Amino acid sequence: MLRIGVFGASGYTGLELLRILLRHPQAEIVAATSEQRTGAPVGDAFPAFRGLLDLRFESATEAAAIAGRVDVAFTALPHAASAPVVAVLRRAGVPVVDLSADFRLRDPEVYARWYGPHGAPELLGSAVYGLPELHRKAIAKSDFVAAPGCYPTSVLLPLVPFLRAGRVEPGTVLVDAKSGVSGAGRTLQDGYLFAELDGNVHAYKAGGAHRHVPEMEQEASAVAGTPVRIGFVPHLLPVIRGMATTIFLRPRRPIGTDEALALLQEAYAGEPFVRILPAGETPRLAAVRGSNFCDIGAVVDERTGSLVLLSALDNLGKGASGQAVQCLNRMRGLPETTGLLTAPLVP
Amino acid sequence: MLRIGVFGASGYTGLELLRILLRHPQAEIVAATSEQRTGAPVGDAFPAFRGLLDLRFESATEAAAIAGRVDVAFTALPHAASAPVVAVLRRAGVPVVDLSADFRLRDPEVYARWYGPHGAPELLGSAVYGLPELHRKAIAKSDFVAAPGCYPTSVLLPLVPFLRAGRVEPGTVLVDAKSGVSGAGRTLQDGYLFAELDGNVHAYKAGGAHRHVPEMEQEASAVAGTPVRIGFVPHLLPVIRGMATTIFLRPRRPIGTDEALALLQEAYAGEPFVRILPAGETPRLAAVRGSNFCDIGAVVDERTGSLVLLSALDNLGKGASGQAVQCLNRMRGLPETTGLLTAPLVP
Amino acid sequence: MLRIGVFGASGYTGLELLRILLRHPQAEIVAATSEQRTGAPVGDAFPAFRGLLDLRFESATEAAAIAGRVDVAFTALPHAASAPVVAVLRRAGVPVVDLSADFRLRDPEVYARWYGPHGAPELLGSAVYGLPELHRKAIAKSDFVAAPGCYPTSVLLPLVPFLRAGRVEPGTVLVDAKSGVSGAGRTLQDGYLFAELDGNVHAYKAGGAHRHVPEMEQEASAVAGTPVRIGFVPHLLPVIRGMATTIFLRPRRPIGTDEALALLQEAYAGEPFVRILPAGETPRLAAVRGSNFCDIGAVVDERTGSLVLLSALDNLGKGASGQAVQCLNRMRGLPETTGLLTAPLVP
Amino acid sequence: MLRIGVFGASGYTGLELLRILLRHPQAEIVAATSEQRTGAPVGDAFPAFRGLLDLRFESATEAAAIAGRVDVAFTALPHAASAPVVAVLRRAGVPVVDLSADFRLRDPEVYARWYGPHGAPELLGSAVYGLPELHRKAIAKSDFVAAPGCYPTSVLLPLVPFLRAGRVEPGTVLVDAKSGVSGAGRTLQDGYLFAELDGNVHAYKAGGAHRHVPEMEQEASAVAGTPVRIGFVPHLLPVIRGMATTIFLRPRRPIGTDEALALLQEAYAGEPFVRILPAGETPRLAAVRGSNFCDIGAVVDERTGSLVLLSALDNLGKGASGQAVQCLNRMRGLPETTGLLTAPLVP
Repeated sequence: MLRIGVFGASGYTGLELLRILLRHPQAEIVAATSEQRTGAPVGDAFPAFRGLLDLRFESATEAAAIAGRVDVAFTALPHAASAPVVAVLRRAGVPVVDLSADFRLRDPEVYARWYGPHGAPELLGSAVYGLPELHRKAIAKSDFVAAPGCYPTSVLLPLVPFLRAGRVEPGTVLVDAKSGVSGAGRTLQDGYLFAELDGNVHAYKAGGAHRHVPEMEQEASAVAGTPVRIGFVPHLLPVIRGMATTIFLRPRRPIGTDEALALLQEAYAGEPFVRILPAGETPRLAAVRGSNFCDIGAVVDERTGSLVLLSALDNLGKGASGQAVQCLNRMRGLPETTGLLTAPLVP
Repeated sequence: MLRIGVFGASGYTGLELLRILLRHPQAEIVAATSEQRTGAPVGDAFPAFRGLLDLRFESATEAAAIAGRVDVAFTALPHAASAPVVAVLRRAGVPVVDLSADFRLRDPEVYARWYGPHGAPELLGSAVYGLPELHRKAIAKSDFVAAPGCYPTSVLLPLVPFLRAGRVEPGTVLVDAKSGVSGAGRTLQDGYLFAELDGNVHAYKAGGAHRHVPEMEQEASAVAGTPVRIGFVPHLLPVIRGMATTIFLRPRRPIGTDEALALLQEAYAGEPFVRILPAGETPRLAAVRGSNFCDIGAVVDERTGSLVLLSALDNLGKGASGQAVQCLNRMRGLPETTGLLTAPLVP
Repeated sequence: MLRIGVFGASGYTGLELLRILLRHPQAEIVAATSEQRTGAPVGDAFPAFRGLLDLRFESATEAAAIAGRVDVAFTALPHAASAPVVAVLRRAGVPVVDLSADFRLRDPEVYARWYGPHGAPELLGSAVYGLPELHRKAIAKSDFVAAPGCYPTSVLLPLVPFLRAGRVEPGTVLVDAKSGVSGAGRTLQDGYLFAELDGNVHAYKAGGAHRHVPEMEQEASAVAGTPVRIGFVPHLLPVIRGMATTIFLRPRRPIGTDEALALLQEAYAGEPFVRILPAGETPRLAAVRGSNFCDIGAVVDERTGSLVLLSALDNLGKGASGQAVQCLNRMRGLPETTGLLTAPLVP
Repeated sequence: MLRIGVFGASGYTGLELLRILLRHPQAEIVAATSEQRTGAPVGDAFPAFRGLLDLRFESATEAAAIAGRVDVAFTALPHAASAPVVAVLRRAGVPVVDLSADFRLRDPEVYARWYGPHGAPELLGSAVYGLPELHRKAIAKSDFVAAPGCYPTSVLLPLVPFLRAGRVEPGTVLVDAKSGVSGAGRTLQDGYLFAELDGNVHAYKAGGAHRHVPEMEQEASAVAGTPVRIGFVPHLLPVIRGMATTIFLRPRRPIGTDEALALLQEAYAGEPFVRILPAGETPRLAAVRGSNFCDIGAVVDERTGSLVLLSALDNLGKGASGQAVQCLNRMRGLPETTGLLTAPLVP
């Protein structure tokens, strides 16, 4: 039984960690922190958890003390806030899966440009990028994993097989991504109010301004063995959970829909959480809601020659907390699907 | 390991049974029927289940053959369609949990008045009403359980303790219930279209015309030891899952909020799926979504003297399939919470 | 042409006033205030209005100056904030329709109990309650109208004819009301976030604790000629606009559905904005969205003898700004439907 | 006063025509047809219109008779059903605005390939494509206008100025479009049910398979003076009304965001319904809901060099019925904004 600490447990990714870990047969949640609700029983603060988790929120400032009581820790804190807590935990020898953006980028200059000064630069670069489909072996050997962002996961999983196969014409990758609002956390801003968001859809940070761009380019470039530039336009959806991503690219050498799907099938044969759809089917958020799946489809537009890749995942599941638990499983030598192979919420 | 057959597996309550049973450690789904999708792999018809369940839909007309391969069966068919299938299964000695309305009413005349001719009158009355909080012992001894409707569950759980304690002034129980649309199944009617229902709320079958009325009155009357009449107005919500029920009643002898809550606490002490909220808190759909919980609150309106009881449950969970699995657990001598004590989907 | 000033124009009722007045053939919006957006062009702050209204937000602290440029003013400020602005405007002789709660209650003690100290007690009681169907003549003669709250409008319109006819058994009126979230304004609270409210429904301020209770009781009592107590449980809906209200009452002398509907028909014959539905039909939010209509239905539950009244309105329309404009029309001698008889947004 | 007939008045675009025409000062609706509701009062079939329109639905088979009583007709029938009705009306000399796809394509072979045999081939090519911003003069002179589809409108308005200016690298236009479900009409299909669509988003007819592709290419090619191919992936949104379109293209000669916006500003100077947003702002559905506006934004992704154009419109407004009324105004010599310059529904 793994004794688990969840730092930043009252945010949406933190709560999703609690939800998943509660059904994980090898996990016991022994600590959960929340700065705003320190001292409150989890079930009082979040009635959904009443009767399920007999724990009071602690403060992340007690990380050193908590470190002595846990076998592994998840840090689901905002970027910048995460780094110092991770540093404390790592110094105490606690294996960590960090869900913030603090340790995903390996280049300190790139981090500084997009996020500002780093809180634990000595650790930057020591974390493994926690996309098991790409870095499974390194994750298995590591005690420090940086779980990917939701957008990068939704872009990299469909794209990587084509990059690896050298089938992507450089400079032609354009991504239109659509995210449920839980990706923004429980942020109190006008635009996230029900009365503002219901029935509303819009792009934001268009033109390559989103902080997930350097992260997806870092990984895509590593796979391609050459710098990959990705045009990226994210959109906000009137949906709680879910991310639907559409990728346009110009294939190097003509490709047909069947060949594209076969390439995906081969790349992900045996992967428990990546499902390649049959020709003619497109991924849909409702088929992955609450799960750790990433569904992928592909179609070639014969008229224009472009290859369209489509993915759907739950931004809190495979896009964040589910993936983090998948990494934990791999890190601790458990079957990767432990606690994760549950059916999506249908309908 | 229990070999399970799910009849009517492609409806919403059927799919929810699949979802729950897939994570049930003692259950193995070995048969699933669907008349419209007979022959299709479950994962092709419902992409959410792709990779989770390697089964093809069969036809319920094969019930006699399926009976030989299962240890227990759930029938999640429409009323009237269910009775003959149940009859086949029962004749073959298969324990059955029926989720239709066909075996909830014990009085054949009452059934006929609300539903028309019965398809297996000889079985009417032989089923135990599957509300474990009321009929736990009888369920444990039975091989035939009729799982309650969602509305009756949401009304009876809050109301029964007060009836039992003789604290309800006869003729004063008025219920305003609000249901998510999955309660209507995947029915192709204008009113269930997104473009018609989103942003829309309305009452329907007001004035005691809903078929769940005789069912809740049957059980309420049995508890009270005297006929109980319930005024009932259901409403449709632009929500997929969830049922929020508000009950007004005039208490026999004045009662305060704290006393009312204490009475509920005492009645449900030890119940794993009934959560009594502290004073000042009201049940909310988001706290039970995807779970088997029924949350209950109470408040006395000091100005008018009426007692207000409030409940929230997931109409597909505690209101249907979760409750049915709870019955199965009890019938087969398993801990009642097996496969069911999972956290609601938050957010 | 009436020169109009809208105070508190950036809140939801304020914006709805702008929207309605822009299509009002006799109104010209010449001033709009917003404390948070003072100085900003309306169309920059609210892109929906770009190209429609060439005005910059002013500050309500300039009320005295603005008073000199307007023929009439709407005050859509929060309660307590409204009273002093109204006082300035009234002293300057400007006719005012106030949409806050500050002038709806005639009894200063009742106001103090529910809202605290009053900001302009000398004016309390001088305003006419702006429900044209009840107080049309007084509104026509007045220069100061307090527009009713949304809940009271949705309760009073169905209830008043039965009170007036002496058909309501005292102490039996119980109301279950459901409101769209725009009724709470653009309030930055967790519970109003899309991720918290979508798919969620819950009661709040149950047990007679809502501030609209004294207001509806004041008007109901005046009509009945005797104190009327109303049990009131409001609910929050995952809906932007709309209020669906269900009223249970015990009729004095038995009544049938047809008689109840006939009584409503007679009471509202000739009313342009109250629509009595035929027997068997229930009001729905989608049929009033964006309009000034209040739809009313009725049904008698023959089994329990209770009369169920149902209403639907747009809480920003007939529940607030539409009704306020209706009052303006009456005050200024215009046809009451001017600018208001538009079709609901369907679908 | 124009006497108007609306054919196919019970579909979503038909109802939207009724809604708009009811507030149009020069229009009087004298006939409305519906095959499913022939004989029913409009207000009985659609309670939103109760009290607003005293008319019974007629049958479109009576087109010849209706032709004698109207000055102009809108045909909002499904494609293929529309052509023969239009033929009757045109033979009778009635000016027609057709909202179906039947007369948008000028090439009969292209029509046949995408839609099948044409019902009135002799008329094909005689209609003017009803995008006033492109064909204002021709519309003014015509008695027969084919109103554009929603997707083509949302693509052409942002794209055309760049095509006209020769700033689009051929073969690089890729479109990710997202549509509210009312675009599919009141179609009874599983995927349009609330329980299936809420919280769900997915692409459909990806790979250039959508019937609106030839229409947008026809117009884009005409403007460019050379064949233009458009890669097009439409998505379905859990939204009733609204279309958000994101266009990626490679500019011929580098362009900056400010220059792109200036080019749009110049192209649409004086246009009442096209609003060019300032730099840094993106169009949002909530800002156009229920209106005839199309909001357009632009941003250059400096990192990849691609130009991103974004548009938002109401698919029933500027995407269908609003635009059709705009055409009517122009055809009949009225100010183009008559009845159309109303504020969006906010919130």
